[in-house]
Amino acid sequence: MVLLYKYDLQNNLNNQKKLDDLQQLVNSDLKNVNIIIKDKIKNKINHIPKVAGHLVKAGGKRIRPMLCLACAQLCDYKGVKHLNLAASIEFIHTATLLHDDVIDESKKRRGLRTANNIWGNKSSVLVGDFLLSKSFELMTEVKNIEVLQILSETSSIIIEGEMSQMLSNRNITTTEDDYLDIIKSKTAQLFATASKICSYLTKVPSQYKNALNSFGMNLGMAFQLIDDLLDYKAIEKDLGKKVGDDFKEGKITLPIILALRRSDYIEKKFWKKTVQDGQINPGDFEKACSILKKREILYDIQKRAKHYSAIAKDALGIFQHSKEKKILLNIIDFIVDRNF
Amino acid sequence: MVLLYKYDLQNNLNNQKKLDDLQQLVNSDLKNVNIIIKDKIKNKINHIPKVAGHLVKAGGKRIRPMLCLACAQLCDYKGVKHLNLAASIEFIHTATLLHDDVIDESKKRRGLRTANNIWGNKSSVLVGDFLLSKSFELMTEVKNIEVLQILSETSSIIIEGEMSQMLSNRNITTTEDDYLDIIKSKTAQLFATASKICSYLTKVPSQYKNALNSFGMNLGMAFQLIDDLLDYKAIEKDLGKKVGDDFKEGKITLPIILALRRSDYIEKKFWKKTVQDGQINPGDFEKACSILKKREILYDIQKRAKHYSAIAKDALGIFQHSKEKKILLNIIDFIVDRNF
Repeated sequence: MVLLYKYDLQNNLNNQKKLDDLQQLVNSDLKNVNIIIKDKIKNKINHIPKVAGHLVKAGGKRIRPMLCLACAQLCDYKGVKHLNLAASIEFIHTATLLHDDVIDESKKRRGLRTANNIWGNKSSVLVGDFLLSKSFELMTEVKNIEVLQILSETSSIIIEGEMSQMLSNRNITTTEDDYLDIIKSKTAQLFATASKICSYLTKVPSQYKNALNSFGMNLGMAFQLIDDLLDYKAIEKDLGKKVGDDFKEGKITLPIILALRRSDYIEKKFWKKTVQDGQINPGDFEKACSILKKREILYDIQKRAKHYSAIAKDALGIFQHSKEKKILLNIIDFIVDRNF
Repeated sequence: MVLLYKYDLQNNLNNQKKLDDLQQLVNSDLKNVNIIIKDKIKNKINHIPKVAGHLVKAGGKRIRPMLCLACAQLCDYKGVKHLNLAASIEFIHTATLLHDDVIDESKKRRGLRTANNIWGNKSSVLVGDFLLSKSFELMTEVKNIEVLQILSETSSIIIEGEMSQMLSNRNITTTEDDYLDIIKSKTAQLFATASKICSYLTKVPSQYKNALNSFGMNLGMAFQLIDDLLDYKAIEKDLGKKVGDDFKEGKITLPIILALRRSDYIEKKFWKKTVQDGQINPGDFEKACSILKKREILYDIQKRAKHYSAIAKDALGIFQHSKEKKILLNIIDFIVDRNF
C-alpha cells in the first residue's frame, strides 16, 4: 500500500514534469500572450475586466495557447503573430467556458466560484460575447485570410458541439458515436486549430499542416475522454470542479454511455432514475462510481483515450527530431495520464 | 377629432411609403441576402435553424441590411460582396437580440413569444453565439481586412454598450450623457457600420466613407431615441413588444432620465419606488405616462431625435443628387416619424 502510494506519487511527478517542460519551452512567449490578454480585456467599463479577469486569472493549464506557441516553434515560425493567435484561441475557449457555466448552471470551476454564480448569468453572457468579439479582433489584426477562415469556422463548430451536447442532456439513447461527434466539435476542433494555426503563417508544406491538425484533433479527443472520466474519479482539489457534476447535471458522457450498455436490468433502472429522470439521492454518485468500477469502464475509457493518443503521436512522425517535437510527444502522455 | 384621425392616417401612409421605397430600391439584393441567411443557418442540428429561424422569420424591418445595400448602391458598388456584409450585419443584430432577451428576461418581441420564452435561455445563448460566429464567417468570406477590422470592432462596441446598459439598470443616477453613450455603442455604431461598410469595397474617397459613417451614426441615435420613446407610447400591435416593458424592467432610458430631472418631490418619490425599487402596482405605468405627458417629455425627445436626424441629412450633402440619396434622406424622416 505504501509502495503503491510512492509509485503514484512518482508517476504524478513524472507527469507534472512533462507539463513543466512545455511551460518552459513557451515561457517567454506565454508572458507576452498574457500581456496581450490583459491589454485586450482592459475596458473603461470596469465590470468587463473584473468578470473576464476572474476566469483568466483562475488560471487553468493554458494548454491550448501553449500548444499553439509550441507548434509555432516546431514550424520554426519567427514572427510575432503567433502571440495574437494564442491569445485569440484562449479567448474563444474562455468565452465558451463562461457560456457553458450559464448553460450548465455550474457553481464552481477550477476550485473557484463561477462568474455566473458571483455576478449572475447576464454578466457571463455579455462578457462571453465580449471575449468572442475580442478574439475576432485579435485574429483580424494578424491580417491573414486563411487563418481567419480557419478560426471563424472553428468557433462555429465549437458552438455546434455545445448545442449537440445540450440536446443530448439526460437523453440515454445517446450513442458512443454521438458522443465522439460531440467532443470532436466542442473540444478536439479547437485543439486541432491551436496546433496547426501558426503553420499557416509559415511556408511549411501542406502535409505538415495536416499532420498538426491530426495531432491536435486526436490529442483533443484524448483530452476530453480523460476529462469526462475524471468527473467520476478525480479528487476535488486537483480538478478544481466538484467530482460528480456531470452525473448530477445528467450530462451524457462516455462513462454513462458505456455503463448503460454494460449494466444489468437493475443497474439500468438505476441509470434511468438518476441520469434520465434526475432523481438523485444521497449515495447515488458513489453507487454510480462502483458500477463503473465493477464494469471496468474507467479502465476501458483510458484505453479509448490511448487509441487517440497513439494516432496523435504518429501524426508528428513526419517532423524531424527536435526538442519541440519531444516535448509535444510527452504532452500527449501527460494528457492521458493526468489526474487533474 | 375625425380630422385629426385622418391627418394621422395620411401621415402614417406617407411614412410607410418612405420605407416601401427603400424596400423597392434594394428588393432584388435583399432576396439574395435572405437566401444567404437561410443557407448559413441551415445545420445538421435541426434545433439551430429552428431557433435562429424563429427570430429571422419574425421579420422586423430589416432596416440595417437595407441601409447596407442602399448605401452600396449610393457608392455605385458593382460586385456581390455587399450581400455577405448585409447578411453578416443582420446576424450580429439577431445575435444581440437573442442575448438581449435572455438578459432582459423578455417574453415577447415583434408580437411573438421570444426564443428564450419558447426554448429556454440555454438555446438562446448558444444560437446567439452561433449567429455571431456565422457573422464572422460571412465577413471573412469577403476577404477584405479593413472590412473585417471595422466589423469585428463594431461587434465589441455593441457588447460594451449592452454591458453599460445592463449596469445602468435601475440606477437613477444615470445621466442623459451616460444614456447617449450607451445608445451610441449599442445601436448607432451598427447603423454607422451598416451604412459605410460597402464603401470600403469601392474606390470612393475617404470623405464619403466618413459621411456615410456620420449619416448612419446619427440615424442610429435618432432610431434608438424614438425606439425608447415608443415604449411609453406605441400601440402593441405596431411595435410588436408590449408597451411599458422598459418601465417594468427598470431600464433607464431618456424618458425616465428626463422625468427624474423635471419631476416635483412627489413625482420623484414615484420614480424611485417604481424604477429604482421595482415596486410597480396596477396603474403605475399609466401614471408614468401621464407625468411624461405633463412634463412634455415625449415631445422633447422627438426634438432630440430631430437634432440627430438633421445631422444625418447634412452628412449626405456631399453626395450628388440621385434616386438612392433621395430614398436615404426620406428614410431619416421615416425613422423619426414612425409609430412602430
